[in-house]
Amino acid sequence: MRTEIASLGEFGLIDQLTKDIELKNASSKYGIGDDAAVLEYPAEKEVLVSTDLLMEGVHFDLTYVPLKHLGYKAAVVNFSDIYAMNGTPKQITVSLALSKRFSVEDMEELYAGIRLACQQYNVDIVGGDTTSSLTGLAISITCIGEGEKGKVVYRNGAKDTDLICVSGDLGAAYMGLQLLEREKVVLKGDKDIQPDFSGKEYLLERQLKPEARKDIIEKLAAANIVPTSMIDISDGLSSELKHICKQSNVGCRVYEEHIPIDYQTAVMAEEFNMNLSTCALNGGEDYELLFTVPIAEHGKVSEMEGIRLIGHITKPELGCSLVSRDGQEFELKAQGWNPIAEDEK
Amino acid sequence: MRTEIASLGEFGLIDQLTKDIELKNASSKYGIGDDAAVLEYPAEKEVLVSTDLLMEGVHFDLTYVPLKHLGYKAAVVNFSDIYAMNGTPKQITVSLALSKRFSVEDMEELYAGIRLACQQYNVDIVGGDTTSSLTGLAISITCIGEGEKGKVVYRNGAKDTDLICVSGDLGAAYMGLQLLEREKVVLKGDKDIQPDFSGKEYLLERQLKPEARKDIIEKLAAANIVPTSMIDISDGLSSELKHICKQSNVGCRVYEEHIPIDYQTAVMAEEFNMNLSTCALNGGEDYELLFTVPIAEHGKVSEMEGIRLIGHITKPELGCSLVSRDGQEFELKAQGWNPIAEDEK
Repeated sequence: MRTEIASLGEFGLIDQLTKDIELKNASSKYGIGDDAAVLEYPAEKEVLVSTDLLMEGVHFDLTYVPLKHLGYKAAVVNFSDIYAMNGTPKQITVSLALSKRFSVEDMEELYAGIRLACQQYNVDIVGGDTTSSLTGLAISITCIGEGEKGKVVYRNGAKDTDLICVSGDLGAAYMGLQLLEREKVVLKGDKDIQPDFSGKEYLLERQLKPEARKDIIEKLAAANIVPTSMIDISDGLSSELKHICKQSNVGCRVYEEHIPIDYQTAVMAEEFNMNLSTCALNGGEDYELLFTVPIAEHGKVSEMEGIRLIGHITKPELGCSLVSRDGQEFELKAQGWNPIAEDEK
Repeated sequence: MRTEIASLGEFGLIDQLTKDIELKNASSKYGIGDDAAVLEYPAEKEVLVSTDLLMEGVHFDLTYVPLKHLGYKAAVVNFSDIYAMNGTPKQITVSLALSKRFSVEDMEELYAGIRLACQQYNVDIVGGDTTSSLTGLAISITCIGEGEKGKVVYRNGAKDTDLICVSGDLGAAYMGLQLLEREKVVLKGDKDIQPDFSGKEYLLERQLKPEARKDIIEKLAAANIVPTSMIDISDGLSSELKHICKQSNVGCRVYEEHIPIDYQTAVMAEEFNMNLSTCALNGGEDYELLFTVPIAEHGKVSEMEGIRLIGHITKPELGCSLVSRDGQEFELKAQGWNPIAEDEK
């Protein structure tokens, strides 16, 4: 079944997509349906705002990304930015531009994914814009959240001797992407063959349905730890480490052997004949949290499940270095995913 | 001079465009450079959030819209949404997706327009996203503003017997667009001829460099008037009136003879052989304010410069009607600009 979007028009489509949206957070006072959403934040909170613009063909490929997954991911990556400030996401606005290729049912799928993510993370959809595009799909999501005054964590607070911590494991989302790209090429033109992804589910899940690390933020709060700096890993560990070091005016030493990597990621890297550490350092789209804590917190963080100590902060003149398994030291290079440089291909 | 964007990369371009941006509003605590912007709003304020997504070829045509004007307009239309809530815009985030066609200098032009608008309206640029697109330019701006608690004005508060007011004049931006489209066709392929727009400057200005009605919001506040409902006119007077009536569950009677129209708009409509009232009712992009006030404010609003009374609110069963110059009554139809229906052409 395919309903043309033009048969509903802009307001009809918006009504259809948003008709039973309810506001659940106390700070969401008025949502969709006016010139602006109205929010009410108490004075002891900081208001956090983050935004992302995703373009078809650059950030996602609809030949293998289901629209519902795309919606989920588009929302979650914005939540991740708010958690990376030690905050809690509360509202999003969703703007979509769509070409004639898309039907009302397609947009319902996309919205179902966005709404599922909002439900999982207790976030309200409070507004947006729906319009047309000449080619492809564009998704712009802005996320608004809150942080406790004095407990918001920036990129610029890392201090010499701080410990560097990372949540979860790295490189799996990148491997999932490689896998999907390979199958896309193999299966081109043959729609009847279903690719066999068994044993690689984790990689696909990390690529297609990433989660934001709400749990880590909650654990840190429960342990009464406020990181000195934090960032989420969207462009790759190297790139994010360099952001923290540059903005904090410090250096870092990271140990290759401590970088957390899942077994499936290692198997795939082998299969693809890729350097595993390069994938983990530069793969991107992990949406894990990278943060620093004072060395006095060593006992607490080293016991936390899902958090790994990967190195420590140094004086700025020591630069950013990676210590390999055999003890050699390399300068850390940010070769993370760069949509604008990609353009050059 | 043309500098390729790929030569700077994403972070280089962002640095270049935002390097000397300063935050001026007390509520802007931390701007560009982290995972999220950090804002601090006092408890007596409501936080207003509005967002727009503009796509090349749908919302703007770069054959006759200079990039600086485009940037200015993209920012101002978002401010207009915040004023339409009886609020004040304070921050914006700016997301851009650009194809290889655009150079660093192009983006500097676009940003110069955005920054000029921010300067004129005292708004801070606090964040955004810069990425690539396969075709064309996409601009997504989210505006955050503040309203006094209890004085935010929605679309849903109009009451039977309220007066309907509109600021400025209508239809000029639409006429400006017709004029530009005509010259584009006439001049196709002939770059040496400069079109003669003398005597039509007002129409072009309304289309290319619209302003948001900050002054009207200030005047209303000074006169101690809180409208019962308000909306900005982006899709045409008819469409916006219908929004107010639907959401307030009322009807309206609007008088054709009272709809404010500039002399140049009238001349152009004549030249194009178009119905003048249709242009004023459905043209769109006026960015004027449409609002209702209790009849008790009649004395005050009828004396305000730049505000015209165009009719009154009725019981819902009377519907939305337009009374023509010869006293006939017509049902008001929303034929406003609809980017999604346009797609069907």
